[in-house]
Amino acid sequence: MPEAMRPDLSGVDPLTVNLTHRVCIGDLPTRASITYGERPALIDDDTTVSYVELERLANSVARGLQEAGLTRGDRLAIQLQNRWQNVVTFLACTKLGVIALPLNLALAPTDIAYQLSDSGSVALVTEDALLPAAEAALRGADHEVRQVWVVGTAPEAVGGVPATGWAPLAAGDGSRFESIVEDRDIVHCLYTSGTTSLPKGVLTSHVAVQLSALSAAVALGLRPDVDPGATPLVLPLFHVTALDALLLPALLAGSTVILHRGFDPAAVAADFGRHAITHLTMLPAMWAALLAQPALAEGDTDSLVTGLYAMAPMPAPLLAALRERFPNAAIILGSGQTETTPASQVQWSGHQGVKDDSWGPAVAATEVQIMGPHGDLLPRGEEGEIVYRTPQLMEGYWHNADANTEAFAHGWFHGGDIGYLDEDGVVWFTDRAKDIVKTGGENVSSVEVERVVLGHESVAECAVVGRPDERWGEAVTAYVVPADGATIDPDALREHCKERLAGFKVPKAFEQVEALPKTATGKIRKVELR
Amino acid sequence: MPEAMRPDLSGVDPLTVNLTHRVCIGDLPTRASITYGERPALIDDDTTVSYVELERLANSVARGLQEAGLTRGDRLAIQLQNRWQNVVTFLACTKLGVIALPLNLALAPTDIAYQLSDSGSVALVTEDALLPAAEAALRGADHEVRQVWVVGTAPEAVGGVPATGWAPLAAGDGSRFESIVEDRDIVHCLYTSGTTSLPKGVLTSHVAVQLSALSAAVALGLRPDVDPGATPLVLPLFHVTALDALLLPALLAGSTVILHRGFDPAAVAADFGRHAITHLTMLPAMWAALLAQPALAEGDTDSLVTGLYAMAPMPAPLLAALRERFPNAAIILGSGQTETTPASQVQWSGHQGVKDDSWGPAVAATEVQIMGPHGDLLPRGEEGEIVYRTPQLMEGYWHNADANTEAFAHGWFHGGDIGYLDEDGVVWFTDRAKDIVKTGGENVSSVEVERVVLGHESVAECAVVGRPDERWGEAVTAYVVPADGATIDPDALREHCKERLAGFKVPKAFEQVEALPKTATGKIRKVELR
Repeated sequence: MPEAMRPDLSGVDPLTVNLTHRVCIGDLPTRASITYGERPALIDDDTTVSYVELERLANSVARGLQEAGLTRGDRLAIQLQNRWQNVVTFLACTKLGVIALPLNLALAPTDIAYQLSDSGSVALVTEDALLPAAEAALRGADHEVRQVWVVGTAPEAVGGVPATGWAPLAAGDGSRFESIVEDRDIVHCLYTSGTTSLPKGVLTSHVAVQLSALSAAVALGLRPDVDPGATPLVLPLFHVTALDALLLPALLAGSTVILHRGFDPAAVAADFGRHAITHLTMLPAMWAALLAQPALAEGDTDSLVTGLYAMAPMPAPLLAALRERFPNAAIILGSGQTETTPASQVQWSGHQGVKDDSWGPAVAATEVQIMGPHGDLLPRGEEGEIVYRTPQLMEGYWHNADANTEAFAHGWFHGGDIGYLDEDGVVWFTDRAKDIVKTGGENVSSVEVERVVLGHESVAECAVVGRPDERWGEAVTAYVVPADGATIDPDALREHCKERLAGFKVPKAFEQVEALPKTATGKIRKVELR
Repeated sequence: MPEAMRPDLSGVDPLTVNLTHRVCIGDLPTRASITYGERPALIDDDTTVSYVELERLANSVARGLQEAGLTRGDRLAIQLQNRWQNVVTFLACTKLGVIALPLNLALAPTDIAYQLSDSGSVALVTEDALLPAAEAALRGADHEVRQVWVVGTAPEAVGGVPATGWAPLAAGDGSRFESIVEDRDIVHCLYTSGTTSLPKGVLTSHVAVQLSALSAAVALGLRPDVDPGATPLVLPLFHVTALDALLLPALLAGSTVILHRGFDPAAVAADFGRHAITHLTMLPAMWAALLAQPALAEGDTDSLVTGLYAMAPMPAPLLAALRERFPNAAIILGSGQTETTPASQVQWSGHQGVKDDSWGPAVAATEVQIMGPHGDLLPRGEEGEIVYRTPQLMEGYWHNADANTEAFAHGWFHGGDIGYLDEDGVVWFTDRAKDIVKTGGENVSSVEVERVVLGHESVAECAVVGRPDERWGEAVTAYVVPADGATIDPDALREHCKERLAGFKVPKAFEQVEALPKTATGKIRKVELR
C-alpha cells in the first residue's frame, strides 16, 4: 500500500496552514466585508451597521474578550434581544474560537442557571433590560461565570459577579484578528428540550454551520448581486433557525438584515415599504398577522423571492392568500431542528399547491431515510422513524453519553419524528416519536410539564401532548384525571404551572378526562390524545 | 480554563460517527439519488443514467475497486473522455476514499508516465480508443501500476500491466457502500504546470470540493426544483472546472448533465433544441462558435440562467451578441485555478456592461486580498499580488515542500497573478506574476517550452509568453534570437517542438527578434513582450 498522500507543509508555519485552509465562521464577516464593503449589513432601529463596520466591531470585541482572558473552547453566554450587539458578540466568539451559548430569553431563571452551570460558561453578555433575569439566574446555582458585560448601563455587579459595560469591548482595535480555530471546533452550544426534563446542550461545529449557511442560500435562492435585497429577522437569535439559516446565509450573500426585537406585524409590514424585501422566514401565525396589516398593500410585495414558514403546517386558505399577495415568491415550508443546524428539508417552488402538506425533500448535503423498528432502512412509502446523515449534524450532546448513544443508534441520527418518503423523495411527517411538543418554535418536554402538573393536589394522572394549532403549530395541552374527590380548576392549575415553568411551557388548555387511553401494558397512547 | 467541550460519543461506534458527520463527496450521489430518483443525471449520446442508477453504478465500482485491493489513500489514474463511465469511476473513488488522478488527455506519454510515477498510482482506468497513449505511458517510466481497467474491449495487458474490462466493475452489487472517509482526506490529485518544467500534483480535500460545489451553486444560481434544467458539459472532466464547478454542483442541484466528448458547436446548439438548458460554461472561443450555429436560433435560448465563460476575457461585441441571444441569462466571467477548487471569483449579474473586463468579486467562502512585495496587504486600488484564503484551497502540493513554502508565503496562498481590488470589492487582473501561459484552459510552463526551443541549433535566446488571443485567451508565443549566422525557420521550430511537447504547449507563433528586452540585471522583461 502506498504511503498516505499528504502535502509536505514543513516550511509553512502552523498559523498560516490554519488561516489559509480552515472552515471558521469568524472568516465569514471578514470575507463579506471585502466583497460587500459599505453596504448595510444590519439595520437595528436607527442604527445601521455596514459590512465593513460589522467586521471591525467583531474584531474589536474578539480582542476585548481575549484580553479579558477568554480563550478557544471557553463558553460565553449571550442573553440579548435581536440587536446588533448580539450579532457582533456572536461573530467575535467565532473569531476567537470561543463557544457561544445564546440563551433563550423566555426561560425561567432556574433554567438559565442550569445552562450556565451545565455548560461551564465563564462569562455572560446581557443588556440592562434583562438584568433582573440575569441577576436571578446568576444567583441561582453553581456556575463558573466570572465576568458580566452589559449592553446599556451596567451596575457594579450582577448576581454577585463583577459587571462592566459592553460598549468598550466594541470600541477597541478593529483591525484583522487572527487566532487558530479548526473545522470541527464547536461554534455554539444551544440547549434543547428532549424527552426528559433536563435540556441537552447541542454542540455544533464550524463545518456544520458553514455548510448550513451555504445550503440554506441554495435552498432559499440567495445569490449575491449588485442590488442587495433585505430580509427582516423576526425569529429570536437564540434559535438555530435565526442564527444559522437566516442571519448567516443573508450575510454570506450580501443581504441587509433588519433586526426585530420581537414580532410586531406592523413593523414587518413597514419594512416592505422601505426596502426591497427578498427573503422572510416566520412562523405560520406570524404570516397570518402580517397579511392582515393594511400597510402591507402599500409596500413592495413583488420583490419577495422566498417566504419560508417554519416547522408547522400552514392552513390552505392562508397559503393561497399569501401566494396572491407575494406573486413572485415561493411560499414554502422548511423543517429541521437544532441538532441538524437546522434545515433538513425545504420544499421546492414546484411543490406549491401540490405537496403543501409535506416537509419537502432533503436539502443539498443532507440524506434523509426512514428506519424500521430493528434499524433497517424502509422502502419508499413505508412509515417509520425519520433519520439523517449530514455534515450539518451536531457533533453530539454535551456530556450526555446516553443521549448520544440513543440519538445515533443503528448508524443514523434519529430526529424524533415518524414519517415516510414518497416516490419523489419528499418527506411526509405523520407523528412524533419523541415525547416533546413543538410550539411556537420551541421544544417542550412533555415529561417536564407532566411532572409539574402532577405536583398539584387535585391531579391523579396527567398526559401532556401537542394539539395541532394554527397559531402555535402545536399547543401544549394537558389531559388530566382528577384525584379522588377532587375537581379540576384550570385557572388554579395554570397558576401552579406559571410559578414553576417558563411561559411557553405552560399548557394552553387543561382537559379533564375520566381516564387516559392506555396500551395493554399500561403505557399512555399519546397518539390518540393528539 | 474549562475542559474542551467535546461530546462523549463512547457509546457510538466509530463507523457511525464517521458516516453521520463527515464531509465525503461519495455521499453526494447517495443523497442526490434519494432526492432526484429516476431523473436523468447524465446523458451520454444514447445512454441516459438516472440519479438512482448513477448511485448504484458508483457503489458497484467502489466494491469492485475494493475487491481488487484498492484502499483509502491509494491513487487511481483515470484516462477517459467525458463519458458516463468517467463520472462513475470518479464517484466510486470518492466513496472508497481512493484518490482520483484524472489524466489530461492532451498530454504526451512521457508526461503521463511522470504523473503515474510521481503520484504512485496503483491502477489505471482507460478506454480502448486511448490504448496507444496508455501503452506508451505505462512503458515510459517507473510506476506502481498493477492493474488496468479498459472501458470497451480490453487486451490482456497494457504496457506490460495486466488488463481487464471495466464493465464487470459496474455490474456488481450496487447497494449502499459504506467506508470510512474523513473531511480532509484527499479526493483528487490534479497535476498543474508551474513555473518550472515539472508539473505539480495538487491535493484537494473532500471539504474543499464540497464547499466548491455549494458555493458554485450559489454563484451560478442553481436551485433544486421540480423541473430539472440541463447543462451541457463540454470542458474535459480532467479539468477541475468541469469536475468541481460544473459536474458536482449540477448533480447536487438535480440538473441533467449532457456529456460532450469534445467541443462540437453543432452538438451544443442541438442541446438547446432538445432540453431546457439552464447553465453552460465554456471558453470564449467556444461561445463564439456556438453563437455562429444556425441551429441555435431554433432552440430554446430563453431558459439559460447563467452562461459562464472561463478564465479569459471575452471581446465586447461577442458579449453583446450573446446577451441578445440569451435574454434571460447572466453572461459572466468566472476565474480561478486548480489550487482553489477552482472558482475564486465569479462576476455578478449586475456587473454586466459595467465591469465586464474585471474578474468579479470573490465567491462566498473565499477571501481575496492584494499583497505588496514585503507581504503586507495593500489598500483598495493598489496593485500587487492577488492572494487567497479559503477552505476551497488545496491541502498543498504533493511531496514538494519548496513549492508549498513558496505558495503559502506571508500567511496567504499566492495565485500567481497581479491585480487590484476596486472600491466595490471587485478583482481586476493586470499581469501574471508566475511565468506561465494560460491557453485554452491549460497552464503551460514558459520555462519548459523555452528549454525545448533553446534545444534547437538555430536559437541563441528565447522567451515564451502568452499573447492575448480571442480564441485561446492567451496564445503561447516564442520570441527567439537567432544563433550567430543562423536564420529562424518557424516551421522547423514548430516541428522540433511537436516532437517534444504536448500539442497545447507548442507555440502558436515564433517571432524573430534581434534582442530580448532586459532589466539592468539581465532579467528578461516579459511584461513588455506580452
